[in-house]
Amino acid sequence: MEKKLPSSISELQTPCCLVDIDKIKENASRMRHWCEQNGIKLRPHMKTHKTIEGGDILTNGSRRKIVVSTLKEAEFYADNGFDDILYAYPLTKDKLERCCQLMNRLELFHIYVDGSYGVEMLTKTAPPEGKKWSVYLGLDNGDGREGVLWDKEEGVELAKQLYMSTNINFQGIYSHEGQSYNSSNPNEIRQTGKEAHLRLMAFVEKLQAAGVPCPEYSMGATPSCSQPDDTMKTVTEFHPGNYVFYDAMQAAKGSCNEANIACRIATRVIGHYPEKNHLLIDAGFLALSFDGKDAQSGGYGMTVQGHPELRIFKMTQEIGFIQAKEGTLDFEKYAVGSMIFIYPYHSCASAALFPEYIVHSSGNIVGTWKTVNGW
Amino acid sequence: MEKKLPSSISELQTPCCLVDIDKIKENASRMRHWCEQNGIKLRPHMKTHKTIEGGDILTNGSRRKIVVSTLKEAEFYADNGFDDILYAYPLTKDKLERCCQLMNRLELFHIYVDGSYGVEMLTKTAPPEGKKWSVYLGLDNGDGREGVLWDKEEGVELAKQLYMSTNINFQGIYSHEGQSYNSSNPNEIRQTGKEAHLRLMAFVEKLQAAGVPCPEYSMGATPSCSQPDDTMKTVTEFHPGNYVFYDAMQAAKGSCNEANIACRIATRVIGHYPEKNHLLIDAGFLALSFDGKDAQSGGYGMTVQGHPELRIFKMTQEIGFIQAKEGTLDFEKYAVGSMIFIYPYHSCASAALFPEYIVHSSGNIVGTWKTVNGW
Repeated sequence: MEKKLPSSISELQTPCCLVDIDKIKENASRMRHWCEQNGIKLRPHMKTHKTIEGGDILTNGSRRKIVVSTLKEAEFYADNGFDDILYAYPLTKDKLERCCQLMNRLELFHIYVDGSYGVEMLTKTAPPEGKKWSVYLGLDNGDGREGVLWDKEEGVELAKQLYMSTNINFQGIYSHEGQSYNSSNPNEIRQTGKEAHLRLMAFVEKLQAAGVPCPEYSMGATPSCSQPDDTMKTVTEFHPGNYVFYDAMQAAKGSCNEANIACRIATRVIGHYPEKNHLLIDAGFLALSFDGKDAQSGGYGMTVQGHPELRIFKMTQEIGFIQAKEGTLDFEKYAVGSMIFIYPYHSCASAALFPEYIVHSSGNIVGTWKTVNGW
Repeated sequence: MEKKLPSSISELQTPCCLVDIDKIKENASRMRHWCEQNGIKLRPHMKTHKTIEGGDILTNGSRRKIVVSTLKEAEFYADNGFDDILYAYPLTKDKLERCCQLMNRLELFHIYVDGSYGVEMLTKTAPPEGKKWSVYLGLDNGDGREGVLWDKEEGVELAKQLYMSTNINFQGIYSHEGQSYNSSNPNEIRQTGKEAHLRLMAFVEKLQAAGVPCPEYSMGATPSCSQPDDTMKTVTEFHPGNYVFYDAMQAAKGSCNEANIACRIATRVIGHYPEKNHLLIDAGFLALSFDGKDAQSGGYGMTVQGHPELRIFKMTQEIGFIQAKEGTLDFEKYAVGSMIFIYPYHSCASAALFPEYIVHSSGNIVGTWKTVNGW
């Protein structure tokens, strides 16, 4: 049963996830131009927006060269004519069959391993007929997540095994400098990006010294790709994803300005509680997510557009509780029934809670985009 | 594109949300029997499971007398033959039109107001032809959420206005003793339930003294309804919801035993990192939710079934990081590729992240249940 879409934002049913297509285009274009100017291939990550329309904008209409975080995403994009898809996720045996199906459907489907388990599995397993496993090796260059450690020899040995295997096309190194999320301003972001880049390049040099050609060496956190240090121009590939929307966290860390945030949760004031000095909105943890808990003193990290004096300090499943950051709330400014807009703390977490986005351009609603959730 | 469902749990694609239908039936039956024995009407809340099949079990097949938290849920249940639906959510003007549609479709559709805004709106707005607004008044009996305050006169005045309005059938009082979630054992739960009940009854007596008949006075938090104090037998209606699944939080607080938890996230070990003393699983914050952050020292509140020695200490979008609660992880016990099962900290938050559940009985997969997400 399709609900009729109103023409104006103020008539929307709340809560809903509002997406500004003009801002997405600006964010996409800024990243693309920097990459083009510096001869870096851009392989945008789809995990933040999870839509075909967003993928079209981020790939500039090519529908080629993307990263995904789930096989469901890979299949969704393959179903819609996308190709050259990298499934950048530590691969295990249980997921091989779906990978083989994707390899048979697509011209280029790349997989990813994060250590010895994956390397051993792939070197010992026959790929689909007429194909080779096309493999990226994950590198931990200081983030502490998955991947081989940049300063240990084991990673070089594993890359060598991938390169030497007749089953495998070794594509190169995939790194994610997630530590850039610990920065609090553009200078710190650039410094972190520079260090992560140095580690990546040190590892690539070791590969070359060991006689292992490394076609691609990529970086991809949104902070460091949005505020790139000049030295990062030597990598071959960027793979950020959050920059499609950005969010309150990225703005707080200096990856972007608040004006760049392309995704907001529209919600309405549904109650005044002067005796408790708080008001209620019709978005709780199922619309906003719990990401960002304690990111702001006495509250969650998400922010209310145009209202720096407010913070969300509590959530139940379907209700958010808002108080003044200091002193008494001036209830007259926020009438019951009026709409307010929340910048999610982390758009990857909040956007995924919505089965579709309401898309607008210059304040006019232009349609809805369906997302691919689940696994 | 339907994925073929394997017959055995060990062959499932992970992550997925596993639901034990036998445990749901036990949980439903235990609550129903206590209510029947004590002459209390049971109006189960649908917000935790959000499925038709779960609704059938909780209403013992009647498809009558339920509570919902969103209009999407109300419409979903109405579409599937459920009736006598209470939309227990602070009502605002923007949601009235969909309420009117539901009133026209159903025999009984009850709405809820939490204060003067809602009372004023309903007394001044004509209901659909031939109908009256059927209204519950929310009462805050110590929880600090929405509703009129139990110890203030304003609530009595508002109830009177509802009762006196010719537009309105005043149904009674809806209270939610959410403070019972602060308890840490069954005795504390019963004590909290008793206090909340005393406050509810004090308010109801004030209504009677003011000449306002109050047909229903209801309570409904899962802890206090699962470990009810004997005094609570005087209420007319129970409306808990989480007891369908329970979760790690409810078990930790003493609402239930771990053996009663009917919902688990099945996930696989996807990486060993002995040098960092942690392992990875294929469930991150999009499968588990961030609810329960810091609920356990050094980690999230969810627990790994059969492995009290483990805790989840970090999550990215699609990956969970597990360490030993103390000392070094014995990696041999958790082979890469092997399945482990996570009890969600808060099943309302985790289950909602899955578009469907995999349902099993005595270890055999018996089908999938689709959920109603969004608003």
